[in-house]
Amino acid sequence: MEFMDIIKERRSIRKFEDRQVPGDVENTLLEAIRWSQSWANTQCWEVLVVKDKEVRSRLQASMSKGNPATKAIVEAPLLFGLAGRLQSSGYYKGRAATKFGDWFLFDLGLAAQNLCLTAQALGLGSVMVGLFDHDKAKEALGIPEGYELPVLIPLGYPAQAPKPPKRREIEEFIHYDRF
Amino acid sequence: MEFMDIIKERRSIRKFEDRQVPGDVENTLLEAIRWSQSWANTQCWEVLVVKDKEVRSRLQASMSKGNPATKAIVEAPLLFGLAGRLQSSGYYKGRAATKFGDWFLFDLGLAAQNLCLTAQALGLGSVMVGLFDHDKAKEALGIPEGYELPVLIPLGYPAQAPKPPKRREIEEFIHYDRF
Repeated sequence: MEFMDIIKERRSIRKFEDRQVPGDVENTLLEAIRWSQSWANTQCWEVLVVKDKEVRSRLQASMSKGNPATKAIVEAPLLFGLAGRLQSSGYYKGRAATKFGDWFLFDLGLAAQNLCLTAQALGLGSVMVGLFDHDKAKEALGIPEGYELPVLIPLGYPAQAPKPPKRREIEEFIHYDRF
Repeated sequence: MEFMDIIKERRSIRKFEDRQVPGDVENTLLEAIRWSQSWANTQCWEVLVVKDKEVRSRLQASMSKGNPATKAIVEAPLLFGLAGRLQSSGYYKGRAATKFGDWFLFDLGLAAQNLCLTAQALGLGSVMVGLFDHDKAKEALGIPEGYELPVLIPLGYPAQAPKPPKRREIEEFIHYDRF
């Protein structure tokens, strides 16, 4: 089944060919985010597409020490940032509806996965980058108050083919009726 | 492009045909979760598969008033619960690595989207249910301390074909280099 190949063959890719991503491909990736579901269709996402070299350098400077995606932040042909409007997902009339408060991380997870799987289907590699100084990165991108930018996503044609990291077996995480 | 059809044709489905989901399909759905990426491969997910009628009733009783998925919790042929181990995703050596603290909602979002898109590819409908009393639901499922259960996901063969809710245009959420 071809669809499961996309799920199973996706890897976190941090090295890319020196080859631009065509505009129509970039547009399809944005469409994939656009079609994501979200809490009561709140669609809290804001997408940054970062091409400017100086902005890329500032984002790179925000990476936490040892982040294996540090080079990719400047070198990837395409760099997306996923920001979320706060107090929207999981909120009704200005109040959090559940004990988890703001669901923006969940909804951005859904949208990010739409993006990464679509990238895989189009022959692109990507990686979710979350380990950085988020306030520094916000400043570099001029993200206003009321929004957060949890994730940066470098994309491009893969120049590496990493082996899949070991996964837990289904038996290790499945529970029938009770935990 | 067939893959984008899956992204675009996925709807939130809350009414299902009276038709069981074969075991091999259920297994493929679990494989899709298993292959999800996660923070440093922490794989914080635990999956509940709820078949027992009494447990289903107790979960239904935990739904917030007006939740449109209330019936689906008991009627769906298949009901998954996605739980997450806390202080794992986003943590290093017992300490949160970023200002966002625990990333379990993000990682469960990635895994949940793997599940829902795979369901769509297999002809199934699904809906993410997050509006309920999470502590009551945890109790019904015997979820231990140190875990949370943010999302329940009813699945089955769709008995409805809802129109897509209106989405923001790409132009409304894209920003080049600066917000």
